[in-house]
Amino acid sequence: MIVDIHGHYTTAPQALWDWRKAQVGNKKPDPSGPKISDDEIRDSLEKAQLKLQRERGSDVTFFSPRAGSMEHHVGDADISMAWSRVCNDLIFRVCRLYPKNFAPVCQLPQSPGVDPANCVRELDRCVRELGFIGCNLNPDPSGGWWKEAPLTDKWWYPVYEKLVEYDIPAMVHVSSCSNPVFHFTGAHYINADTTAFMQLIQGDLFKDFPTLKIVIPHGGGAVPYHWGRYRGLAQDMKKPLLKDHLLKNVYFDTCVYHQPGIDLLLKVIPVDNILFASEMVGAVRGIDPETGFYFDDTKRYIDSNKNLNNNEKVKIFEGNARRVYSRWKPA
Amino acid sequence: MIVDIHGHYTTAPQALWDWRKAQVGNKKPDPSGPKISDDEIRDSLEKAQLKLQRERGSDVTFFSPRAGSMEHHVGDADISMAWSRVCNDLIFRVCRLYPKNFAPVCQLPQSPGVDPANCVRELDRCVRELGFIGCNLNPDPSGGWWKEAPLTDKWWYPVYEKLVEYDIPAMVHVSSCSNPVFHFTGAHYINADTTAFMQLIQGDLFKDFPTLKIVIPHGGGAVPYHWGRYRGLAQDMKKPLLKDHLLKNVYFDTCVYHQPGIDLLLKVIPVDNILFASEMVGAVRGIDPETGFYFDDTKRYIDSNKNLNNNEKVKIFEGNARRVYSRWKPA
Repeated sequence: MIVDIHGHYTTAPQALWDWRKAQVGNKKPDPSGPKISDDEIRDSLEKAQLKLQRERGSDVTFFSPRAGSMEHHVGDADISMAWSRVCNDLIFRVCRLYPKNFAPVCQLPQSPGVDPANCVRELDRCVRELGFIGCNLNPDPSGGWWKEAPLTDKWWYPVYEKLVEYDIPAMVHVSSCSNPVFHFTGAHYINADTTAFMQLIQGDLFKDFPTLKIVIPHGGGAVPYHWGRYRGLAQDMKKPLLKDHLLKNVYFDTCVYHQPGIDLLLKVIPVDNILFASEMVGAVRGIDPETGFYFDDTKRYIDSNKNLNNNEKVKIFEGNARRVYSRWKPA
Repeated sequence: MIVDIHGHYTTAPQALWDWRKAQVGNKKPDPSGPKISDDEIRDSLEKAQLKLQRERGSDVTFFSPRAGSMEHHVGDADISMAWSRVCNDLIFRVCRLYPKNFAPVCQLPQSPGVDPANCVRELDRCVRELGFIGCNLNPDPSGGWWKEAPLTDKWWYPVYEKLVEYDIPAMVHVSSCSNPVFHFTGAHYINADTTAFMQLIQGDLFKDFPTLKIVIPHGGGAVPYHWGRYRGLAQDMKKPLLKDHLLKNVYFDTCVYHQPGIDLLLKVIPVDNILFASEMVGAVRGIDPETGFYFDDTKRYIDSNKNLNNNEKVKIFEGNARRVYSRWKPA
C-alpha cells in the first residue's frame, strides 16, 4: 500500500474561495459555510488528486486544507476560527466521499500573538467528532514576520498536550507570506522547515513530551543536505547525538523534487524517520524536461533509488505512516 | 593551488571586541580603532587559520570580518560605518602581514532601512585604496526581522553598480540574529542563502547587471538539495532554465559539512559555479565522530568525491576563484 502523508486541497471548489473572500472583505458570508455539492467536490478531485493517485500508483493521501490559504495572519482569531472550521468541514466531506483515498488532517485556528490554547477546541472537534488523524501547526502565524516564540517554548505546550493525548502528529507547515522577501513555496516553506528543526536541536522539547511526534515536510527543508552541520552544531552545544536527541520524535517527508535530493535524504536520514509524500497538487505543477515526468511524482524517485531494500520501501511507503499516524485506520 | 573563498576573522584579538563593546555601550572608544600589535594579529592566526591551512593543505583564504559581528542591526548608520572601517582595516593588516595566505573581503556599513548607497564610500576605499577583492552583502540588515526589499529591488542597485564597475563579487551573508526563532548559523544563515536564490529566480536582476557576480555561501542553503523544486518553480513562472537565468552570475561555495551533501552539490550544480570554501574557523568547530576529521575540513569531501576529474577539481579549488574574484592576484 502506498500512503502519501502530505496533500492539500488546493483544488477546492471556487465557492470556498468566494466564501473566504467575503469573510476577509467583511461581507459576512453564510456562517454555516459555502454551499458546495458532493458532485462539485467529486469534480474537483477526479481530474486532479484522484487521477494522479491512479496514474502514479498511490492509494491514500493524508489530506489537509490548502496550506497557503490557512492565512493565519489575515484577520483576527475569530476569523481564523471560522475559516478553519469551514476548511476542516470540507476536508471531512472529502474523506467521507472517498474514505479509501483520503484521510483527514486539520488546519488549526491560529492567530498571531494569540495563545495556541485557542486551537484546542477545534482540535478536539476534528479528532473526536470527525476522525481527523493529524494537524498542521504553523510556527509563524504572522505570515513571514516571525514574531512567535520558538516551537520549544511553553507557549506551544497546550497544543502539544492535546497531540500527545490523542497520539496524533503535527506537521510543521507555514502558510502564505505577506513579507515580500520570502517567496512562499520557494523560500518561506523551506526556511520554516529548517528553522523548526534547529529550534528542536536547541531545546529539549521531547524531555517534556517523550511521545510527541513532529513531521518536518519538504524533505526537512535544508536539514538533510546540511546534516553534518546539524550534527556538528548539536555536538558543539553538548546535545546528545541527533538520533537520540530528536529522531525518536521527528520525521521527514519525501517532498523533494529530483532524484539526487531523494537519494541524499535516503542516505543520511534513518529509514524509520522518512514518510512518503508528494504534496500533489501543490507547489510545483510542471513536468521536468530532464526526465519527462512530473517534478512532484516523488514515488518514482524512491522506486529508482538503488540502495533501499523492499522492507525499507514498505516502511517509507506505509509502515512509518501507520506508526506515526496511529489513529489512521485504512478504509 | 587551493583557494578557500570563505573565511572570517573569528579569532580576532580581544581588543577588537572590547572596542566594539565600548562603541555599542556608547563609551566612545578611540576613533582611530583598537590598539592591536602585529604580534597579536600573528598570534590570533598562527594557532588557528594558518595552522589549519597547513594541516588541511589550503594555500590562501579570502578573508573577511567575522560575519556574526557585522551586526548591522545594532546602532545606526554612523555606528555601522565606524565599525565596518575598523573591521576592514584589521583585515587589511592581516593580508599585509600574510599576503600569501589571505586576500581581503570587506564588510559593508549597512544599516536597517538606510539607502545602501551609503556603502559606496567604504567600498571605494576598500577596493581602490586597500586592494580588497570582494564584499559581503547582508540581505537582512535588520538581524532576523527581514524588513529590507528583496535583493532584486532597485533599492540595492547603488551597490551593484559599484560591484560591476570594480568587477568584484558580493557574497550574500547575513549576520547574527536578534530574532529568537532563528539560530544564527543553524537557521538564519541557511535561510538567507535559500531566500536570496529564490529572489533571484523571481526577478530579472542580471538583465540589468549582466556581469554582476553573486556568491551564495553555505553550499547555497537549501537550494541544491531542492534543485528540482527550483527548476520547477522557475518553469512554472515562465522563467528561462536556471542555467540561463542565473548560472552565468550566481555561484555556490562548498561550506557543506558532510560527504553526502558535497556529493549532491557536485552532482546537481555545474562545476563552473562551485567555489571551494570551508568557513574555518567558523560555525562548526568539532570533529565528526563518524569520520574522525573536522566537520569543516571540506577539502577532504571534495578530494573523496568519486565523480570529479582532475580538471574539474582544479576549477573548484582555484580556477573559478580566479575568474569570479578577478581582482585577486596571488602574492
